[in-house]
Amino acid sequence: MTVDEMWLKRSTLVKLLENEVFCLDVASEDLVILRLRSELVDFLKAKVTTNQAKATVILSIDTTISENDEAYEIEAQKIVGRSSKGLLYGFYAFLRLKLTGEKLSEKSEPQQAIRMINHWDQVDGTIERGYAGESVFFGSPGSNDNTDHGSFSLREIKGDIFRNDFARLEMYARFLASIGINAISLNNVNVRGLATNLIVSPYIDKVREIAHLFSSFGIKTFLAINWAAPKLIGGLTTSDPFDLAVRDWWKGIADHIYTLIPDFGGFVVKADSEGEPGPYQYGRNHADGANMLAEALEAHDGLVIWRTFVYNCQMDWRERSFDRAKAAYENFMPLDGEFLDNVILQIKFGPMDFQTREPLLPLFGALRHTNQMMEFQVTAEYLGHQIDINYAVPQWRSMLNFDTKHDKTHSLAKEVLIKNSIIKQNSGLVAIGNVGMDENWCGNKLAQANFYGFGRMCWNSDLTSEEILEEWLKMSFPEVEDAQRATIFNIMIGSNRTYEKYNAPLAVGSMMVPHYHYGPSVNGYEYDRWGSYHFADRNGVGVDRTTATGTGYAGLYAPEVAEIFEDINKTPDELLLFFHFVKYDHILHSGKTLIQTIYDLHFEGYDEVVAYIKLWKSLEGKIDAITYENVAERLERQLQNARNWRDQVNTYFYRFSGVKDNQGRTIYK
Amino acid sequence: MTVDEMWLKRSTLVKLLENEVFCLDVASEDLVILRLRSELVDFLKAKVTTNQAKATVILSIDTTISENDEAYEIEAQKIVGRSSKGLLYGFYAFLRLKLTGEKLSEKSEPQQAIRMINHWDQVDGTIERGYAGESVFFGSPGSNDNTDHGSFSLREIKGDIFRNDFARLEMYARFLASIGINAISLNNVNVRGLATNLIVSPYIDKVREIAHLFSSFGIKTFLAINWAAPKLIGGLTTSDPFDLAVRDWWKGIADHIYTLIPDFGGFVVKADSEGEPGPYQYGRNHADGANMLAEALEAHDGLVIWRTFVYNCQMDWRERSFDRAKAAYENFMPLDGEFLDNVILQIKFGPMDFQTREPLLPLFGALRHTNQMMEFQVTAEYLGHQIDINYAVPQWRSMLNFDTKHDKTHSLAKEVLIKNSIIKQNSGLVAIGNVGMDENWCGNKLAQANFYGFGRMCWNSDLTSEEILEEWLKMSFPEVEDAQRATIFNIMIGSNRTYEKYNAPLAVGSMMVPHYHYGPSVNGYEYDRWGSYHFADRNGVGVDRTTATGTGYAGLYAPEVAEIFEDINKTPDELLLFFHFVKYDHILHSGKTLIQTIYDLHFEGYDEVVAYIKLWKSLEGKIDAITYENVAERLERQLQNARNWRDQVNTYFYRFSGVKDNQGRTIYK
Repeated sequence: MTVDEMWLKRSTLVKLLENEVFCLDVASEDLVILRLRSELVDFLKAKVTTNQAKATVILSIDTTISENDEAYEIEAQKIVGRSSKGLLYGFYAFLRLKLTGEKLSEKSEPQQAIRMINHWDQVDGTIERGYAGESVFFGSPGSNDNTDHGSFSLREIKGDIFRNDFARLEMYARFLASIGINAISLNNVNVRGLATNLIVSPYIDKVREIAHLFSSFGIKTFLAINWAAPKLIGGLTTSDPFDLAVRDWWKGIADHIYTLIPDFGGFVVKADSEGEPGPYQYGRNHADGANMLAEALEAHDGLVIWRTFVYNCQMDWRERSFDRAKAAYENFMPLDGEFLDNVILQIKFGPMDFQTREPLLPLFGALRHTNQMMEFQVTAEYLGHQIDINYAVPQWRSMLNFDTKHDKTHSLAKEVLIKNSIIKQNSGLVAIGNVGMDENWCGNKLAQANFYGFGRMCWNSDLTSEEILEEWLKMSFPEVEDAQRATIFNIMIGSNRTYEKYNAPLAVGSMMVPHYHYGPSVNGYEYDRWGSYHFADRNGVGVDRTTATGTGYAGLYAPEVAEIFEDINKTPDELLLFFHFVKYDHILHSGKTLIQTIYDLHFEGYDEVVAYIKLWKSLEGKIDAITYENVAERLERQLQNARNWRDQVNTYFYRFSGVKDNQGRTIYK
Repeated sequence: MTVDEMWLKRSTLVKLLENEVFCLDVASEDLVILRLRSELVDFLKAKVTTNQAKATVILSIDTTISENDEAYEIEAQKIVGRSSKGLLYGFYAFLRLKLTGEKLSEKSEPQQAIRMINHWDQVDGTIERGYAGESVFFGSPGSNDNTDHGSFSLREIKGDIFRNDFARLEMYARFLASIGINAISLNNVNVRGLATNLIVSPYIDKVREIAHLFSSFGIKTFLAINWAAPKLIGGLTTSDPFDLAVRDWWKGIADHIYTLIPDFGGFVVKADSEGEPGPYQYGRNHADGANMLAEALEAHDGLVIWRTFVYNCQMDWRERSFDRAKAAYENFMPLDGEFLDNVILQIKFGPMDFQTREPLLPLFGALRHTNQMMEFQVTAEYLGHQIDINYAVPQWRSMLNFDTKHDKTHSLAKEVLIKNSIIKQNSGLVAIGNVGMDENWCGNKLAQANFYGFGRMCWNSDLTSEEILEEWLKMSFPEVEDAQRATIFNIMIGSNRTYEKYNAPLAVGSMMVPHYHYGPSVNGYEYDRWGSYHFADRNGVGVDRTTATGTGYAGLYAPEVAEIFEDINKTPDELLLFFHFVKYDHILHSGKTLIQTIYDLHFEGYDEVVAYIKLWKSLEGKIDAITYENVAERLERQLQNARNWRDQVNTYFYRFSGVKDNQGRTIYK
């Protein structure tokens, strides 16, 4: 198997750097500097000298260049880091500038302190919501079957749970570091079976090896824990955070981990969510639950990353007053200020679950005395399973740049989450990753752009989606002519919007096939227990979340924002059905009726995929055959998916509304 | 585990017969007579004498009593059989008359020659569509987990595939024989994994043991075969029926089986259906496919039972002209007269798949030169999974008694299927069984009545549903007072109609949760590939199957029948939506609108379950605690199911029609 080199093509880099001589001018060594040496000598096969006079590129450390430890400066042939980590980032930035042909002049530091990837990898080698093969961390050598068996039970495990493919892990760590990721959690937040034991020997000993490798790339390793571990594996009769034996147990666990892994990141926790255990079982709140762990980790500078994805997943669809969208706010807003300094809340960007379109979750800006990170999903659970092309950076950036209006200045979401964190360093961005053991890491070659884009956006969200995509294209297809790169750019840049068009309309959400979350099933969740409904009937569709007549969700925003979402005539079209029940003949800002908008979007979405295929076919023979075939095959499947979405959604609403398409296109009866 | 004695309670029988002395006055012995002796001595612990003078009950054989080999006569204390099998049936009839307290005077012979149970048991011990635990034939000792894992892949099998619980099999065979069943197939018609090998050693050797046991109860054993076996296990490169090596292979298989099991029944075949292999793969038709097997079995008087459940399960919902209901007719009607004398077509009673209400399949009466059996489903796949109470005999009898009008006389379905078979003995009724390793055999104690009722109906379909139920109640609850038995009767007698009321309305079918087939999912199949749609929109609901404007299915019946189904005003209400797209304000024969009928039925259905629960509670302490608790628990689940159906169907149609319930009952928005 030839593993794809993604955006760091070694042969291209070796060639670009063949005339350079590097000098590493540092006073002291550490694991990261050692890695940097290895990157030069082993990865790039570059010439290295200790004699500055003979060097063409000098790498050094200077603590005066910034307050930010991770900062770097590149000027001509000099790369300066604020620290060894800063220097490592400067080094990869240097490679980027070389590959993209930009001027060698860049001074930079990350906007977000924590830039993290969560893995939903399971100890049996599968990945929950993984669309690119099995886990790079767990599983058996040679096995790469990530088939979704429709259940959450693990496969039978024989022997070692770890994959032990350290060559692959080194490649992965390099990709992460090259885009500035500085934290990962290894295992799925739904902690099942042996995953509960990862925090104890013998499993933690292997985690140590992995963590050591990632440390050398400036990346801290975290583990997702099962909050009920004291009972499940600790031999205790309770997991109550008010029980002293429980607190001591966690302390013992933490102490042991830090003896082995001195820079261990900490714990990621999904508690009281979708069936996972949590403090509510003991009548405790989430601050009680998180602070217990925080105390155990405090002495070691460890963090508790606590997810706010807590909602009632045993809803009755008949109960219209309940609104799942309010759950995170209602569960966590009352606890603002109650969490210890080393607890961070991990908050999904939207109130539901990474749908094609959601408003920003109103906790951002409202939560003022709590460390917080915004959570994204790089793995395309609801965005086409890496079958459909979907460059999601535009969607993510719109979340970060949403103006919460909680303050006169610096009220953008990306600003308030730093500003309102108690410890500024304990804030950041986190996403569920999208890589697996597939040859090209992501199933679809073009899905690599989301991995790349997430990292770049964490570092610098002032980069536009276009800039990030262009960077990625230049680095990933260095051998391809500009015109062809432009063709790929043209396919990808609007692909998130294309997907949205043929998907559930106007932010109504959750019209996909239950559980699998690919393909349409308009009523799939409508009478189910998950709290995601669209309420379509013969008159209209959408969820009234206004304060005046609906669930009151709109009122959770700052007044200036609430006022917009409260008003059917002010709410932006693309969020309309999230906030209002809208009649089919209602005229949108676009000047079209709702029903015609639904039809138009779905025809457009499908037609755009047809256009993508035509564009892609023009690349045959002009880009490498593996990429060409990979994406061509995916595009054919995307076309079928878009067709299913278009026809099922249009027919569904035609049957309800009885209104014909004003352009006479085919809507099946 | 105390295994339920169903309708043959040994202690009651022993007591009833304590003063009797039996004399078996037969000239020669055979396996069945041996069994009869064992039933007297071992099962009933009865006194047996060879001295007629001392006997109070004399069992003998007299070939003059009837033309029908299976006939018997009971007069006072004399039981006479036309053959040993006739005598065995007479013996069980005697027990029935004793248990029910009827007069000991009955002359009887079966109406249907073949009275068969198909098992959908799998070699891993599970049962497809089984709701009463694991298989009595296959599986590991002690294992009884029939959880539906949502996939058709078999579990891993370790060691012997057979359960080897011959005590349980003997009980089961007794129950079958006591109601006149004379044929069984052991394994699922979807023949997967090692099930393909059941026809060869070493598996066939264990089948021989099972078949031997069932033979002693007058029951022939059949096996479901994989039509592609020559390729799959025979080492051939084809399974083409026109290939001589393939024909020889099957002949060799048959010859071997009959050396071991001289009275082996033959093969049951699901071919070219839902993904199973079949003759279409080789450009051959179903007569070619079946006759090949028939030739192999001919010399041994073996039968080929060939299922007509053949349809395109890769339908596109957009294609309205296609109609799955026509599939069996279109596939098999052209082959009438083409099948060999030892082929029997096994034809489901309705054109779809055992829905709560279907019209009779129009092959019955039309097919005039083909052996045929009508297929029923005792296991409650679409009728409530043996959670909901559903005494289905009324539905089945209505199928048998449907007047096809293909002839002036004897045109009822139950008559034409005998009349139109080439060999009268090669016709009959068959059903998929409903038993498993659960303590009470059927999951729900009351579901035993369907097992009992199917056998009794095969023997004598002139018995009314009420008579059969009364028999079953008297035999199953001999210790219970009449008033309490009447209460159970009152719950059960209308339970099939109750279930229908809260299920999919007016024969529209297929509104259940996909794959699992329990609980509502109104649109679950609407945009899927299975060809079962309801086409509900803001104006109405139903499938236009008329010849005038629809798919033409109605025209497949005899003219007198077709004329009724063709006309929206003549079609019976309960079949209305199967044949017509009907507007919500259409007035039914009942005088109500369609929409109000949908609401009323669903409210009534739920209310009837509430009433059942009240009735059942009155039985506490008056019937045995195990039965009481078993049914009480099931009824609670049925209530939830009925509530889900009521509310989801009513809301679904309210959202479409916008019409309020005229009695102001709650319909959720």
